Amino acid sequence: MKLATLKDGSRDGRLVIVSKDLTRCVAAADIAATLQKALDNWTVAEPQLQALYNELNNGAVSGEPFDETACESPLPRAYQWADGSAYVNHVELVRKARGAELPESFWTDPLMYQGGSDSFIGPRDQIPLPSDDWGIDFEAEIAVITDDVPMAITPEKAAGHIKLLMLVNDVSLRGLIPGELAKGFGFFQSKPSSAFSPVAITPDELGDAWIDGKVDLPLLSTLNGDLFGKPEAGVDMTFNFPTLVAHAAKSRPLGAGAIIGSGTVSNKENGDPGRPVKEGGLGYSCIAEIRMIETIQNGSPETSFMKFGDRISIEMKDKAGQSIFGRIDQEVVKYINAE
Amino acid sequence: MKLATLKDGSRDGRLVIVSKDLTRCVAAADIAATLQKALDNWTVAEPQLQALYNELNNGAVSGEPFDETACESPLPRAYQWADGSAYVNHVELVRKARGAELPESFWTDPLMYQGGSDSFIGPRDQIPLPSDDWGIDFEAEIAVITDDVPMAITPEKAAGHIKLLMLVNDVSLRGLIPGELAKGFGFFQSKPSSAFSPVAITPDELGDAWIDGKVDLPLLSTLNGDLFGKPEAGVDMTFNFPTLVAHAAKSRPLGAGAIIGSGTVSNKENGDPGRPVKEGGLGYSCIAEIRMIETIQNGSPETSFMKFGDRISIEMKDKAGQSIFGRIDQEVVKYINAE
Repeated sequence: MKLATLKDGSRDGRLVIVSKDLTRCVAAADIAATLQKALDNWTVAEPQLQALYNELNNGAVSGEPFDETACESPLPRAYQWADGSAYVNHVELVRKARGAELPESFWTDPLMYQGGSDSFIGPRDQIPLPSDDWGIDFEAEIAVITDDVPMAITPEKAAGHIKLLMLVNDVSLRGLIPGELAKGFGFFQSKPSSAFSPVAITPDELGDAWIDGKVDLPLLSTLNGDLFGKPEAGVDMTFNFPTLVAHAAKSRPLGAGAIIGSGTVSNKENGDPGRPVKEGGLGYSCIAEIRMIETIQNGSPETSFMKFGDRISIEMKDKAGQSIFGRIDQEVVKYINAE
Repeated sequence: MKLATLKDGSRDGRLVIVSKDLTRCVAAADIAATLQKALDNWTVAEPQLQALYNELNNGAVSGEPFDETACESPLPRAYQWADGSAYVNHVELVRKARGAELPESFWTDPLMYQGGSDSFIGPRDQIPLPSDDWGIDFEAEIAVITDDVPMAITPEKAAGHIKLLMLVNDVSLRGLIPGELAKGFGFFQSKPSSAFSPVAITPDELGDAWIDGKVDLPLLSTLNGDLFGKPEAGVDMTFNFPTLVAHAAKSRPLGAGAIIGSGTVSNKENGDPGRPVKEGGLGYSCIAEIRMIETIQNGSPETSFMKFGDRISIEMKDKAGQSIFGRIDQEVVKYINAE
């Protein structure tokens, strides 16, 4: 099943069912007005939404054309957004870039940061920021949405609480990170509003690409029109999604609609950091990684962080080339506080 | 105006207006079903809620008895919970306890961590945790709730976005903090679900105790029936609430209903860390502070962290002795995962 939230001037938008091929959609208002409301009552809502999805796909319901540019993030605001760093290769590279060592425990104990969830931006919305001197970077990721997860759950049982998947652009301000992490309390100002893919899907939509709590497909990032990364999301993911969900729930329950992210998707290549796409490699899901590679090779980074006017798109396609989640496609623009 | 959320079996409870003396309440459902809905539409809802509050106080509306034990936290779940550390004295003491120095910048740049907001517990609910070997501590704090705050706002303009105030018990797991902070991504498992006071109030309820974006009254913490702390919340608050709100909004907007906390209220005494209440001092708003004082004086801490069966209450009274927010009063109990 595929779901999206269309902009309608309200804070939470309106829930629609989207056809498998992303061409049509139909209002789900009779079942649940918003995605949060569906998740609040998932056991009841899910079979009804699924039935409508089947009707939309087989033509029994015609619906209306689906327009990705009219979408909010599937949850325009959420009660929980926690982002893991399951691709430890990414963590190793960005820490190298900061001159910090990777503790051995990072391979066995998931890193996770508590994100802010009150002001997500839409998948085709601009990314407004007051300054492009802050080292604006994208991070291409996958995230899951859960129903209610009890405290102290095992990874085995956490798997059953994963109800939906999305793609994420976890916008990061690299220039603000070192100062903020040095204060010891983690990210705050360095992680502005994130954006999610137009469509959220149930895991069954992935077919056999949903294996062992991982998504076994490449994640495509395109920067200013050039393919920047196509790493395999099913490879080098040290902690799978059920493990990340259980980590998040160690000392507190998770509320329905909790979003748990994978962290930046990142592959090694024969044990080494991968190569850029233009050199025949799988590339990267953020600019910080290629800058680190450039620094290792040439002593200094060449690729600059994003400036106003730069554009990032993030997408995942199935083996037939069909977009699964729709496309995140965003331009960084200067924010002016009008108040 | 005073507002509360009564438990009704739903996730967000039902909004009531509470009389100034906390004895009576009246349903606000005709204006807004929940506090979040009121905050989503505050400009319209606030004058209507205020009119009903006036009628409840002058007897034109009789309402029903108000029962603090029937309350959820005013926002049972929220889209944003960010907690500052505005009382730098507290930060200095707990860092000393960890053997960490306080950077000079902490006196000019607010510390703030991104909290989780999907699973708050009620003010009279138990605090269920899987283990009491995790160094369970309370933190008595004050928090504000904002309406929509634009990105990059000044502290001066942020002041006008503070719509409500509450008390907080920011439960902390001291035993998990050092390991978690060493990983560099801030608190996550070490900050389980927080609880808020039964009642949220508009700033005008504080009269002349709301000065310069601070609350100029003592915050009372009682541990197992003994007064543990009565520090002045208006003293030693290095960053006032408008400054904390502006800090939170530097690189992203805050959504209506965002909760911004003060951090643990903590006073110095003649430039030194204060004394325990039983020694004639103002005491402390968390156990970590008294343990640090004990360590400085005697080489090791005497006061233990909370164990199952221990009880913490947090309250603030006006100069006439009337409780302003009602009382947080919670017992720590063992959590058993039944799934």
